[in-house]
Amino acid sequence: MSRVINVTGLRSVVTTAETKKAVVLISGGLDSATCLAIARDQGYSCYGLSFDYGQRHRSELVFAEKAATNAVLEDYKVITIDMRGVGGSALTDSSIAVPEKETDGIPVTYVPARNTVFLSYALAWAEVLNAEAIFIGVNALDYSGYPDCRTEFIEAFQAMANLATKQTVEGSSITIKTPLINKTKAEIITLGSSLGVDYSQTVSCYQADEAGRACGVCDSCRLRQKGFEVAGIDDTTRYAG
Amino acid sequence: MSRVINVTGLRSVVTTAETKKAVVLISGGLDSATCLAIARDQGYSCYGLSFDYGQRHRSELVFAEKAATNAVLEDYKVITIDMRGVGGSALTDSSIAVPEKETDGIPVTYVPARNTVFLSYALAWAEVLNAEAIFIGVNALDYSGYPDCRTEFIEAFQAMANLATKQTVEGSSITIKTPLINKTKAEIITLGSSLGVDYSQTVSCYQADEAGRACGVCDSCRLRQKGFEVAGIDDTTRYAG
Repeated sequence: MSRVINVTGLRSVVTTAETKKAVVLISGGLDSATCLAIARDQGYSCYGLSFDYGQRHRSELVFAEKAATNAVLEDYKVITIDMRGVGGSALTDSSIAVPEKETDGIPVTYVPARNTVFLSYALAWAEVLNAEAIFIGVNALDYSGYPDCRTEFIEAFQAMANLATKQTVEGSSITIKTPLINKTKAEIITLGSSLGVDYSQTVSCYQADEAGRACGVCDSCRLRQKGFEVAGIDDTTRYAG
Repeated sequence: MSRVINVTGLRSVVTTAETKKAVVLISGGLDSATCLAIARDQGYSCYGLSFDYGQRHRSELVFAEKAATNAVLEDYKVITIDMRGVGGSALTDSSIAVPEKETDGIPVTYVPARNTVFLSYALAWAEVLNAEAIFIGVNALDYSGYPDCRTEFIEAFQAMANLATKQTVEGSSITIKTPLINKTKAEIITLGSSLGVDYSQTVSCYQADEAGRACGVCDSCRLRQKGFEVAGIDDTTRYAG
């Protein structure tokens, strides 16, 4: 049982002890918005978590907050972790250009150890909340080839997490949930649409402008466009220019 | 070959391509100071990394910087990651008191997923640097029982790291080095002393005051005191009061 309250502008849910809790990573993109809808549909009381990590496409945080505001969340945190100080990616080093056509291998938009850092922080919060699950919208089918989006990485993170915290070594598990990992982008969009996700309120572009308008040519934009096309669903993405 | 230069007040080393690099986690405490000395002694070009995570004993960062300044480092970063927002520990929630005598089980000074978060960020930097190793001064013998200080956790983190990054999936390894994990505190102090570590410039106390003076009664102080006593080395720790 839960009741909706308003805290800092977000609809929030006060839950009773028996409610199952999940930390949900929210990026502002299509996948994480779908993932959040799935977690809610599965009956989890959701705690949204976004990262201000020095990303080029910082406007995605505005969309992350929209996703958080549109969903019923128990709590929502935006955590600042400076990954620009480390650099090594087109998303955290403005001197490296975002590729506008397909490239061989892992593209320069790969951010070193990003999902490892994000999941680690989520693990900390999940432990304090006594949450059962962490939802992350990684996808290893229609994706950019990032190593930390693959099933083998998630399984290894899970094995590590099982040994990492007081909660997990004392017998309670925190399960990393990746409901999108083996779905095509079209399948994700179809599923999310059936759950009421408003994709006009998400941004996938690696170099979205300040208003959240997409470039239409980066890897992420191309995957998104193809997804809507194959799904046969209207693409309401706003493009710049 | 390397030469020493002065950058932002730190002695720094410009290394040639063949130098082996390591990221070294520096907390300001006895163990990490020893770990840094070991990494240097093993011929690594060292990149120091500390975290301002909202810890109660924030004065440890002054000592971390002292360790960084006293060592020859290629670079040194202090990264801010808010773990106080998550709380759940006497070190990140000022309403939870630091125990001043031994307690059963994992004590409340345990910080949820702290080493997982720290190692994840170190992994990101190590990848960008093309470093071979990450040194962390965890110890599973004279320690507070934290799950993320144990060998099985480090091994699981290593397995995860091998699948997490572009560098590791492309065949270069980043090895998590834990040279202190099976040593007693006395052995650590003896080894560090032989490598020239000045322990008066370190602070271990969970509730050190602003001047870095130790309480003398917390778990960490007790382990440190016993270590010096057993090692038969003068304890130059400064105590409050």
